[in-house]
Amino acid sequence: MLGTMLDNVRKQKPLIHNITNYVTVNDVANVVLACGAAPIMADDSGEVEEITALCAGLNINIGTLNQRTIKSMVLAGLKANSLRHPVLLDPVGAGASKLRTATALDLLKLVKFDVIRGNVSEVKTLAQGSSTTQGVEAAAVDAVTEANLEQAVTWVQQFAKQTGAVVAMTGAIDIVASAGQAYIIRNGTPLLGKITGSGCMLSGLTTALAAANPEHKLQAVAAAVCAMGLAGEQAEARMQGQDGTGSFRTYLLDALSRMQGTELEKGARYEVR
Amino acid sequence: MLGTMLDNVRKQKPLIHNITNYVTVNDVANVVLACGAAPIMADDSGEVEEITALCAGLNINIGTLNQRTIKSMVLAGLKANSLRHPVLLDPVGAGASKLRTATALDLLKLVKFDVIRGNVSEVKTLAQGSSTTQGVEAAAVDAVTEANLEQAVTWVQQFAKQTGAVVAMTGAIDIVASAGQAYIIRNGTPLLGKITGSGCMLSGLTTALAAANPEHKLQAVAAAVCAMGLAGEQAEARMQGQDGTGSFRTYLLDALSRMQGTELEKGARYEVR
Amino acid sequence: MLGTMLDNVRKQKPLIHNITNYVTVNDVANVVLACGAAPIMADDSGEVEEITALCAGLNINIGTLNQRTIKSMVLAGLKANSLRHPVLLDPVGAGASKLRTATALDLLKLVKFDVIRGNVSEVKTLAQGSSTTQGVEAAAVDAVTEANLEQAVTWVQQFAKQTGAVVAMTGAIDIVASAGQAYIIRNGTPLLGKITGSGCMLSGLTTALAAANPEHKLQAVAAAVCAMGLAGEQAEARMQGQDGTGSFRTYLLDALSRMQGTELEKGARYEVR
Repeated sequence: MLGTMLDNVRKQKPLIHNITNYVTVNDVANVVLACGAAPIMADDSGEVEEITALCAGLNINIGTLNQRTIKSMVLAGLKANSLRHPVLLDPVGAGASKLRTATALDLLKLVKFDVIRGNVSEVKTLAQGSSTTQGVEAAAVDAVTEANLEQAVTWVQQFAKQTGAVVAMTGAIDIVASAGQAYIIRNGTPLLGKITGSGCMLSGLTTALAAANPEHKLQAVAAAVCAMGLAGEQAEARMQGQDGTGSFRTYLLDALSRMQGTELEKGARYEVR
Repeated sequence: MLGTMLDNVRKQKPLIHNITNYVTVNDVANVVLACGAAPIMADDSGEVEEITALCAGLNINIGTLNQRTIKSMVLAGLKANSLRHPVLLDPVGAGASKLRTATALDLLKLVKFDVIRGNVSEVKTLAQGSSTTQGVEAAAVDAVTEANLEQAVTWVQQFAKQTGAVVAMTGAIDIVASAGQAYIIRNGTPLLGKITGSGCMLSGLTTALAAANPEHKLQAVAAAVCAMGLAGEQAEARMQGQDGTGSFRTYLLDALSRMQGTELEKGARYEVR
Repeated sequence: MLGTMLDNVRKQKPLIHNITNYVTVNDVANVVLACGAAPIMADDSGEVEEITALCAGLNINIGTLNQRTIKSMVLAGLKANSLRHPVLLDPVGAGASKLRTATALDLLKLVKFDVIRGNVSEVKTLAQGSSTTQGVEAAAVDAVTEANLEQAVTWVQQFAKQTGAVVAMTGAIDIVASAGQAYIIRNGTPLLGKITGSGCMLSGLTTALAAANPEHKLQAVAAAVCAMGLAGEQAEARMQGQDGTGSFRTYLLDALSRMQGTELEKGARYEVR
């Protein structure tokens, strides 16, 4: 099933509109290409609605947000909603500044997101800010471990229910959940945290998979998270001699560009609850 | 002859001013360095005229245009014109939004471009928008094939005549044409389309070659197109084992940084009409 | 001693705020990660003060400055000063346009920099612009050679005294100096000049080392300059076959990500005056 999600991207070659940060934008474009989709980056408010209309999915990443691009994010998001295109929010750094938190929360209010992808701290910031009550669970979830896994899953599912989005909260253990079902994913390697952009790349990849599988969003997001983790494992396995994070980064893109559905199916390590 | 064009860059080390998109700007800078030139990126309207005056060529790429940078493109273009520095236009995404199409057409009206480099769809958008009559030929050219090659060449030459620019329309078969002469180029590999920025990199490379060979612009542009295609072939030939698009990208830059005129002369596959 | 400076980064994992150019920002983020620190890029005036407050050091690079980000640089710089966080200035292109020169000089007036890192031309521009008298020495220093080394060191030390900063003037021979002491560093390879961003990467690395060693700023800066040069040497030594600047770039990041204090201690080539 997860393999099919990836194969569908390679068959359909969806065009993905990315309003993303200038730090990792090149990596995001290359990952979107590597999985078989095609990227367009455009962030001027004078064109984002048209560009989104040409595309099959929209990836909004607030990593280097500014007043000019925040406006564009809202315009593009509303347009994508009106066309029922999958829209993903990557709330990079939510919680680190009032601007980031407020922007992420405003986006959540104004735009209906199909997918929210962030780390624990970012997802927590959104969940607390958009919730009227701050549950004990939220405070307890600082990093997902085997010890607090069940609690964390329940909490992510609550946030998924509240927002209507598939929520991908990524870390050492990844949780991908809708209100009704959750994937617990154990692919990956700590090396993914030693290069910049692995989260942003995953968000681009996820948008591509969601766009190619609009009827199976939860599975599509789970497939993207497994694929990025598996590619990281494959890249790490290939390292030798004097290889460090530079080579890892190259191997990661290599692995994603070569990954087939059957391979993902075989390498994905997850349980469904 | 084409080899000399490249050797001249390595001898003269021209400084190239790039107003380009933030997606592939790092790749463009590295390619400009790889061919022996030196890049400067500057896009604030308060300095672009001075920066252009320091340089030997100007590369304008509208890939992530916005109101602030459009103004800078015009200012830099006019300054380069007044100094008779070669100016290249890469109309990324022209046709995809009104803003892109209008900006590209405005630039064509305001600035005299020495080179226009784009794919079929982008060049068509410019040719149709800036022409009072939309020829049958334009509509017919969707992709250049052996079947429609003669028609396509004629059409590109008409656009070259109309604009006074050397036009490089790149795809599976590349056409580089002035009003009087055309190069049909068959270097390259489909892998160049699997990484982001191969078009933008080519535009940076082309500007460097045009700047180092102002008296032979057509040959300089043809040499750049052959060099990028040949580097792609060399990079592809080097791939093995688990290599994918990440390694291809590294090998492409490797190949460009090592390419000598004699090698380009030998590997360039083109005919002149 | 220099090795300890690097080890301290890996132990403390300081968060580094970078307001830097969009050309090499990805490389800067990867280098900051490679040395054991963590990068945040944020340039909107609405959040830079908060982001800087979260971090242990601030890296200001004017490579693609514009009116919007200049304001943010000042705000972040003042905030970092008030918190006594180390602040570095990389005056990319100072001297190439009035905007760059004026911005760099304004920053020097408004913000107290702990470190200034630039090439000879950039440092000269700052020294001349902020000095009431233009010494003969300044004009004489166009490139640091064994012949003019003593003169150059004296001149850099004067500028360090004038600004209160540790000044790193990098080139074939690097000079890192405070008013009272100078390191003359001979690590490196000309290949570092064949890729974009080696200067910007060094500035990110230097900020990380300064942030992790606030009590030993001169040694921290010297360690960063030696580490980047040594990584370049290691990357060059690894090149073979068809490797060119693409592979060199990957190997450089590899080397930085693997470098340990003992290795730096052993490979650093410098004298203290």
